[in-house]
Amino acid sequence: MTATLPTEVTATQALVQPALRAAVGELRPPMRGIVSYHLGWTDEHGQARNGGGGKALRPALALLAAQAVRAGPEAALPGAVAVELVHNFSLLHDDVMDGDLERRHRPTVWRLFGTPAAILAGDALLTLAVDVLERAADPAATRCLTAAVQDLIAGQSQDVGFETRMDVGLDECLEMAAGKTAALMRCAAEVGALLGRASPVASGLLAEFGRCLGMAFQLVDDLLGIWGSPGVTGKPVLADLRVRKKSVPVVAALDSGTGPGAALRELYGRPDPPTEEELRTMAELIERSGALAWTRDRAQRYVVEARSCLDRLAPPEPIHAALSDLTRFVVERDR
Amino acid sequence: MTATLPTEVTATQALVQPALRAAVGELRPPMRGIVSYHLGWTDEHGQARNGGGGKALRPALALLAAQAVRAGPEAALPGAVAVELVHNFSLLHDDVMDGDLERRHRPTVWRLFGTPAAILAGDALLTLAVDVLERAADPAATRCLTAAVQDLIAGQSQDVGFETRMDVGLDECLEMAAGKTAALMRCAAEVGALLGRASPVASGLLAEFGRCLGMAFQLVDDLLGIWGSPGVTGKPVLADLRVRKKSVPVVAALDSGTGPGAALRELYGRPDPPTEEELRTMAELIERSGALAWTRDRAQRYVVEARSCLDRLAPPEPIHAALSDLTRFVVERDR
Repeated sequence: MTATLPTEVTATQALVQPALRAAVGELRPPMRGIVSYHLGWTDEHGQARNGGGGKALRPALALLAAQAVRAGPEAALPGAVAVELVHNFSLLHDDVMDGDLERRHRPTVWRLFGTPAAILAGDALLTLAVDVLERAADPAATRCLTAAVQDLIAGQSQDVGFETRMDVGLDECLEMAAGKTAALMRCAAEVGALLGRASPVASGLLAEFGRCLGMAFQLVDDLLGIWGSPGVTGKPVLADLRVRKKSVPVVAALDSGTGPGAALRELYGRPDPPTEEELRTMAELIERSGALAWTRDRAQRYVVEARSCLDRLAPPEPIHAALSDLTRFVVERDR
Repeated sequence: MTATLPTEVTATQALVQPALRAAVGELRPPMRGIVSYHLGWTDEHGQARNGGGGKALRPALALLAAQAVRAGPEAALPGAVAVELVHNFSLLHDDVMDGDLERRHRPTVWRLFGTPAAILAGDALLTLAVDVLERAADPAATRCLTAAVQDLIAGQSQDVGFETRMDVGLDECLEMAAGKTAALMRCAAEVGALLGRASPVASGLLAEFGRCLGMAFQLVDDLLGIWGSPGVTGKPVLADLRVRKKSVPVVAALDSGTGPGAALRELYGRPDPPTEEELRTMAELIERSGALAWTRDRAQRYVVEARSCLDRLAPPEPIHAALSDLTRFVVERDR
């Protein structure tokens, strides 16, 4: 399965990219250079390069949310930039905490510039995000952002804590995904709606749309972390099992009360690094426990919920189509 | 020399402490518990303990600034809490970056709870600071805070960069001190003034008062880092020389063009850890280069500048006395 981003989503990049570059341009050296490298705008020597920037789903969501309530996309631009800056703040700090060596096929910032540089660049992005949004003079939007950041921090904290625990429950695992991923997607849509002067009902529907999209996104991410194709995802085969991550399909299997679940628990609890053979067995056990199907089904249910929010909102047709395409992209993507 | 905090400063604690506890109480576990430990409210097992909290100069400065423009101290409370939260955000992250093992005679957070916990707790405090101030609905105050945070980050970034450089100039060293310390003291006074509805001229004078106080504070800190009494400061004797810190007196000596300065440069450039004998020689060389006297004199000049701001402002007499006492405390303190 290969899915491409809807054209309405990629079209938002034309607005977002210059605004994002202007915001990052306000940072002082060396943070500005480090962030430019992280965003893929420059190489490690500071030379401009093509590409980079990732999927930029969150800013697209913010702009489309404003358009969904019949405002111009420009109204949501400070929100779009702010959520993308917050997203990248969290990537910079998460890479330090998780000790990840690569991101988007390139060395991570802490590995290239050192841990202090990665911490400081993250701090600078978080502060810049608030600053950019503050200028939109919408206190509800700023509060929405700071609340999402606290959710994000709580989610990452849970994720780190899961590493050393074998008793993680499925509920807290979903709660972690809600904090780590869905909170900021929810915030992107809600901030876009707020800056687009949406009614409380409409912002509520868009916030819920963003949350469901975020949950589906994370569940699919968890599936790709096990069954994704290394050539496409840029991660090693069975990547999440290799580091014994407590992702949703893993916890659903461990928590399944099935024979394969018990066998997985035994394998996951071993002190030595798993062999390639054991990794393949783990993936099979998760599938046989029913956790693969459950996770896929759950992602699909979030998509149905997201679409139901859209139907109730009834945005202008091209925006409805774009947001609906976005839900399809999120579950059908392969990276 | 032993100096105590002016009673007006300690009196502000009665207002600040409950507000600070209420704000930290909004954090989620485990961040709430980690921050409570860091602030000295609990021990490593989460049990309440007496003391802690540090000097809390910055919140005192915010409340006194509001009173200086004839507002009630309560008006500045969100600003006082926000600057104290930002100060502690920076301590949590700096301890990770500098690898410091102790703060206020206790193990640092990263050492006790791990690096991810320290990074996340710092992130949560920075976000909380913005959130608390945002509720005061004074955009200029929020902008003042985010600008100070960017200064703080830039200052810490310079400080980290100095570690591996032998060509640090005195100007950039003072610029680093301005970012790392004076920016947030300046912000504390300015935010207090803004929340107290000061005129632009009065906030400008209070901001400059805070900046000069902050510069004097940092210069005295640098002197205590070399000549402070270990029993009082809680740091080893000649602490900053031991880690070959590029503090202002050191850089002033290296940059002095004198014989002792050249001898210090030779000693500071050696690859091996300095012996106790070499440490004492370094301190002597700094003194003989004239850099000790220069730094002391410079701190005194900042105090004179700060007092001149006060005189021009002409606040109510008890507040004038308290702020003036604060400048005396900053240069006369021994810890």
